[in-house]
Amino acid sequence: MPPIIEPRLLKGFRDIPADHMAIRQHMIATVSQVLERYAFQPLETPALEYADILLGKLGDEGEKLLYTFTDHGQRQVAMRYDLTVPLARHIAQNSQLAKPFKRYQVGPVWRADNPQRGRFREFYQFDADIVGTNSPLSDAEMLVLIQDSLLALNVNQFIIRVNDRQLINRLADQLGLNNQQTKQFFKVLDNLEKVTWDQSAQAFHLIGLSTTDVQQVRHQLIDNPGQLADISPELDHIAKLAIDLGLDTQYLKFDPSIVRGLDYYSGMVFETTLPQAPQYGSVFSGGRYDGLVGRFSKQQLPAIGASIGLDRLMAALEELNQLPHTTHQPQVIVTLFDQSVEAAQATTQAAATLRQAGLNTAMTYQSSSIGKQCKQAAAQNIPWAIIIGPTEQEQHQVTLRSLNDQTEQQLPLQQAILQIRAS
Amino acid sequence: MPPIIEPRLLKGFRDIPADHMAIRQHMIATVSQVLERYAFQPLETPALEYADILLGKLGDEGEKLLYTFTDHGQRQVAMRYDLTVPLARHIAQNSQLAKPFKRYQVGPVWRADNPQRGRFREFYQFDADIVGTNSPLSDAEMLVLIQDSLLALNVNQFIIRVNDRQLINRLADQLGLNNQQTKQFFKVLDNLEKVTWDQSAQAFHLIGLSTTDVQQVRHQLIDNPGQLADISPELDHIAKLAIDLGLDTQYLKFDPSIVRGLDYYSGMVFETTLPQAPQYGSVFSGGRYDGLVGRFSKQQLPAIGASIGLDRLMAALEELNQLPHTTHQPQVIVTLFDQSVEAAQATTQAAATLRQAGLNTAMTYQSSSIGKQCKQAAAQNIPWAIIIGPTEQEQHQVTLRSLNDQTEQQLPLQQAILQIRAS
Repeated sequence: MPPIIEPRLLKGFRDIPADHMAIRQHMIATVSQVLERYAFQPLETPALEYADILLGKLGDEGEKLLYTFTDHGQRQVAMRYDLTVPLARHIAQNSQLAKPFKRYQVGPVWRADNPQRGRFREFYQFDADIVGTNSPLSDAEMLVLIQDSLLALNVNQFIIRVNDRQLINRLADQLGLNNQQTKQFFKVLDNLEKVTWDQSAQAFHLIGLSTTDVQQVRHQLIDNPGQLADISPELDHIAKLAIDLGLDTQYLKFDPSIVRGLDYYSGMVFETTLPQAPQYGSVFSGGRYDGLVGRFSKQQLPAIGASIGLDRLMAALEELNQLPHTTHQPQVIVTLFDQSVEAAQATTQAAATLRQAGLNTAMTYQSSSIGKQCKQAAAQNIPWAIIIGPTEQEQHQVTLRSLNDQTEQQLPLQQAILQIRAS
Repeated sequence: MPPIIEPRLLKGFRDIPADHMAIRQHMIATVSQVLERYAFQPLETPALEYADILLGKLGDEGEKLLYTFTDHGQRQVAMRYDLTVPLARHIAQNSQLAKPFKRYQVGPVWRADNPQRGRFREFYQFDADIVGTNSPLSDAEMLVLIQDSLLALNVNQFIIRVNDRQLINRLADQLGLNNQQTKQFFKVLDNLEKVTWDQSAQAFHLIGLSTTDVQQVRHQLIDNPGQLADISPELDHIAKLAIDLGLDTQYLKFDPSIVRGLDYYSGMVFETTLPQAPQYGSVFSGGRYDGLVGRFSKQQLPAIGASIGLDRLMAALEELNQLPHTTHQPQVIVTLFDQSVEAAQATTQAAATLRQAGLNTAMTYQSSSIGKQCKQAAAQNIPWAIIIGPTEQEQHQVTLRSLNDQTEQQLPLQQAILQIRAS
């Protein structure tokens, strides 16, 4: 006998059990349907790409988190870190694709992140992107589909916080910041809502901003009493189009602290938070990234995308007790009366009939006492048991036992089906 | 400007476009529903596992194909090669799980295989397994669910070819073969249907079988005129139970050449071929593997599983022109009359109404001539266009143009919706 290998998962990885999966599948199907109404169509790209495809646009921090290795053909390969860079590669590689190209993709991505705070190294992303237009109509459409996706999931308390990268880029320019300083500046901005102004001011000083600079930042970003039309006419125009497309203004907020970490964003950026569960951060984020496709092609193609953080949203909804009630659990179990051929035949035939009737039907494989079989089924939350002994067989009936209250009745199988279906 | 990175895919990998995805999603949903009727529930395990978990049960050839590497924490990790070994790890790790445990899992697996002959290095598997019973009822259930899954996909010409590993193990024992010889013996068996008997006989001689041995093999496997009950009472019993569970005998065939490559099979094994497309090999295969969980646990748990080869099945059905007709293509496009604010407003409001009505609705983002917009939409197979100019706006109507035959009519938007829906 070879030694037993300890069954274990890699740090930051997990198995997803049935109840979680049923809810995830339901959420994916729900959001997919919304996206299809918005004329997005599905695409799938591989888990593995050439490493140089993924490197260079994720930012230094992102690249540290890439799973890279040398494959059997001595190629440097990497597991995808997000779904956006592979999309840009796909678009550049298939120049014949009709534009604008609207696709959604759902699947796992991998980041060797510190798996504290409920973060995992493998997690699901669900992205929708529009490639080939920089029309503010496409920006507006993104905001509305976030609203419609969340409403379709029965989430009706959320804030889509929008900003314009160009706005904060201009500010960084005005302040005369170099590349490195700009990155740090963005980080302090990103943190603005989480700390006091004094702490932010200190952080700005550390980057090298003078007291006058810090006052200018405060004036432009915090104290600014102006209308959105004055601060960013572009964002204002997008917001108006989004309202025509059906966006309820209660869900939209201008927030100059929204930066988004990735290097490739170039225009509108947004994050969506749940006011009742702010600790989960953004559950639906993205922005415009007009330069990304140009990394792989001479053809410059503007693009905008949004990504729903499925795992994070599920965790938040679970805490808020707002998860959809979806399950694929068996609705009934057909017990096995004894070890006889007749009992096996009665069980299999009843199971076949119940399944044909569309009921999720378990059956017992090895006979034990009916009481024990029912107890095991109840432990798996199966609500009904069918029992077929010699008496039932003689009378062409079955016994239907409720595993909730142990009540029983003898009746034809077809009536049992109706009763289970109605329960 | 940094240099352009050539957009390219790794050898053996591919992008899956919208039409293919729509059909795959439909097939996954269809088979999932059948499996849920059979009381299977979904599970997901990670793409990455500790390498030692995956090594040791795939056979020498399998292990060469594993993508393995050292991760950031100096762990030896591997991308999953199949969905069965991770299931065994999951079961051993979670001893509290109620048995029998029935789960299905669908997702990509990775093998650094030679990507000739339409094989890919990333491909989808769709597995259903029953763990914790060796009852022939569970073997029978597997055969019926293969039938029901294929019928649900409107595939009604297939043969489930079954064999018993114990039967051929016994034969190898009778012939006095050692481990290495047994592996080679199985390979020749596996090839039995593809070559002449003389070629097989030669291959048997090369392993070291005498002429008498080869005659014995021919007698037991080829010429054997007996009933299944004589050859393998176990398989005969399973077949009878499967018929009670609803299996149509026309789909079942005993085939002593079915071996299955993986080392871990221990009882009934099966492959399902399409007589009209035999070149695609088996589209639904599996078997009993009673020893696999014991690799990770002192608790021995018998198990049986079946795996549908989704990609292979799709390729075969495509050739047979039997793919389901499923698409998520937009049903209508709302054109943009000109660059005015009024035109954008009319387009966005009509798009919002069409989407609320449940229609998959594209819209134009940047105005060009209506003719050009319609031509581009037709090229994307969108069948209808909505046009809203000043005349239509004045009369609170829209123009509905068929992009198939270019006919037009002016009517209220609500009537256009009914017409598109009915088309």
